[in-house]
Amino acid sequence: MRQVISAVCISCGAEYEATPTITTCRKCGGILDIKYDYGYIRQVLTKDKIASREQTMWRYRELLPAEGEDRVRRLRVGWSPLYETPLLAESIGIKRLHIKDDGINPTASLKDRASVMAVVKAAEAGLRTIACSSTGNAASSLAGSCAAADFESYIFVPQRAPEGKLAQLMMFGAHVFLVEGNYEDTFRISAEGIEKYGWYNRNAAINPYLVEGKKTVSMEIAEQLGYEMPDYIAVSVGDGCTISGVWKGLKDLYAIGFINRLPKLISVQAQGCCPVNRAVEENAPVRPMEENTIADSIAVGAPRNPDKAIRAIKESGGIVINVSDEEIMQAMRLLGRTCGVFAEPAGAAGTAGLKKAVEMKRILPGATVVSLVTGNGLKDVANAIRAAGKPKAITPDMECLDRALKEVRI
Amino acid sequence: MRQVISAVCISCGAEYEATPTITTCRKCGGILDIKYDYGYIRQVLTKDKIASREQTMWRYRELLPAEGEDRVRRLRVGWSPLYETPLLAESIGIKRLHIKDDGINPTASLKDRASVMAVVKAAEAGLRTIACSSTGNAASSLAGSCAAADFESYIFVPQRAPEGKLAQLMMFGAHVFLVEGNYEDTFRISAEGIEKYGWYNRNAAINPYLVEGKKTVSMEIAEQLGYEMPDYIAVSVGDGCTISGVWKGLKDLYAIGFINRLPKLISVQAQGCCPVNRAVEENAPVRPMEENTIADSIAVGAPRNPDKAIRAIKESGGIVINVSDEEIMQAMRLLGRTCGVFAEPAGAAGTAGLKKAVEMKRILPGATVVSLVTGNGLKDVANAIRAAGKPKAITPDMECLDRALKEVRI
Repeated sequence: MRQVISAVCISCGAEYEATPTITTCRKCGGILDIKYDYGYIRQVLTKDKIASREQTMWRYRELLPAEGEDRVRRLRVGWSPLYETPLLAESIGIKRLHIKDDGINPTASLKDRASVMAVVKAAEAGLRTIACSSTGNAASSLAGSCAAADFESYIFVPQRAPEGKLAQLMMFGAHVFLVEGNYEDTFRISAEGIEKYGWYNRNAAINPYLVEGKKTVSMEIAEQLGYEMPDYIAVSVGDGCTISGVWKGLKDLYAIGFINRLPKLISVQAQGCCPVNRAVEENAPVRPMEENTIADSIAVGAPRNPDKAIRAIKESGGIVINVSDEEIMQAMRLLGRTCGVFAEPAGAAGTAGLKKAVEMKRILPGATVVSLVTGNGLKDVANAIRAAGKPKAITPDMECLDRALKEVRI
Repeated sequence: MRQVISAVCISCGAEYEATPTITTCRKCGGILDIKYDYGYIRQVLTKDKIASREQTMWRYRELLPAEGEDRVRRLRVGWSPLYETPLLAESIGIKRLHIKDDGINPTASLKDRASVMAVVKAAEAGLRTIACSSTGNAASSLAGSCAAADFESYIFVPQRAPEGKLAQLMMFGAHVFLVEGNYEDTFRISAEGIEKYGWYNRNAAINPYLVEGKKTVSMEIAEQLGYEMPDYIAVSVGDGCTISGVWKGLKDLYAIGFINRLPKLISVQAQGCCPVNRAVEENAPVRPMEENTIADSIAVGAPRNPDKAIRAIKESGGIVINVSDEEIMQAMRLLGRTCGVFAEPAGAAGTAGLKKAVEMKRILPGATVVSLVTGNGLKDVANAIRAAGKPKAITPDMECLDRALKEVRI
């Protein structure tokens, strides 16, 4: 990997060789970050070269810490649609809004970008068994990527995970352990299992390569906008890895001169579980919180990667916003009705936060924004029906239809 | 539309001008088929031209009966992945197998190809309100496409539609009527409502443009295979419109010389609801059947487009196969575990039929096949869990994990 220099601890600065199995800093336990040789990448990569390639996340391969990705059978991940949505922009009260629908990935969430990277790196390490803990999306995503590659997966999810995600896991043939406890308990037992059994580690806060997979989402946003960046990018935040990935992708493109300004990040968490945002607001260390929200994917009371996330929010000059479950459900309806995009609760949280930030006048009407939808609403049908209601029943005769239509039109 | 000559009745041969609102033959009630000027298309279209275009179904625009599609705000439909799956080919016992995963569309089914066409044609007709009846996927798909275009939709679904599809409908803001009756009742009341209220008709068996949208799936298969066609394409069959579309796409490509042989179709229905296949086997007219299968999307007891479907199966020299619910669930597990593709029951039926046809020695081991997955398993989580089981619960301690792992490894 000529493009990768090393893995650097974001806490103490210690540098390590970027072998496929590195996890956290051996000296201080800090999170590692992959360091690239931007001078070299500038020489070998052009926008035209990217534009000519297959429409997947691997089109940015010079900016990815992998080699031999073609040797593994992979799901087709990335290049999700970016929709301009004038109706929603008007409804929210800003100048221009794009929705990046990352629910259109093979297992219906952004996490596929990380999972396929895990499979590629495990293969580089000569391993064919991968494990992770997850609120649900990373789990089902890893299970799908492992099935496609003919790898085994061991998956730990908290018992509250929605049925859709569990169904995916079982269908992909993962070994699934439903942990009686919260996300923190789930993470801990997975870490112990990984340690004991030597599985490849796909916990995104531990394995520094996974954020690198996730960063392709912001590279796509940049390319899809002709490298003209918006003022803000709104992202829902749980463990902190996705927003870290979004920021890394932007900084990479800035470093090689493909974009000439960096958007500010809007970090959106649920009111019932917002330890990262609280730490930013209080300028204090992260303290654990309860996990009290319908947005299961971002219900992470003890986030495992707050340092990268907080650094990203601050470096970007970003905004933190907490939203209620009611505001999330309202954003789900708005996305569905004005864009035809069906988001799971955590997937709509970014848009809910954007709306609230505008209402609070923290974002001005002239702003241009991209809001990231991180997962498909089909993953959590129960909460979708809670948000959108149930249909009217009719008997199949015209009189009954006429009556029902009168109600519609009132 | 220089490329379109007329709309021709497939029963009596009567020809009509292809206006946006044509439905069925005014003389005999037969289904219409769009007739193209292949001589003209040969002159203006090349494989290279297609290859240079955006990766959506509109890359085949010279072979589509629409104009001004860019004037409508559209979901990004088509160019779904085609996965080569050596493991599944080996498991089934054939030489080569590709899975076309059309569950990776904006509303998670192949029906998006027809719905976005309905929106474009309604716009051509100056209408902004569209209606349809559907077992679920056409419905949720139309609702999504209408939301994106800022159109209204009136949707009729039978009460048995799975929750995931209902959740999509409600989220996309459709006016939904849950009909107390079967698909036949649902279709009839929708037709009466469309007649009375003047909505644009998105019933695929009535509106000849919709099969034209669906045909893009087989054009993509051809292009993704470098225009080297397989021996067979396996398709699940309900109303008959999808298999008609698959065949039309192949014949179009053959007519303009892009492919030099036509695959045989494998028409797969559920044992509990197989009126089209029965009509082919008996060489007799279609008679209604009960709708007794978990594969709700193809549970169509009184199909509305059997004529085109039966003609397609026969012209191709195809095979008809009926599968049990147990065989469908087995195919769901196979697709999940060997390909990382999560299919709804109807979406896996094609693969179930292929497997059975090989077991019955109606397809030989040297065969090359493409099997079409028509919808995502997240649409019907209840049946997915029925097929794949539920995960094991553990308490978050190593002793419990060790015990659970011993069971996994037995």
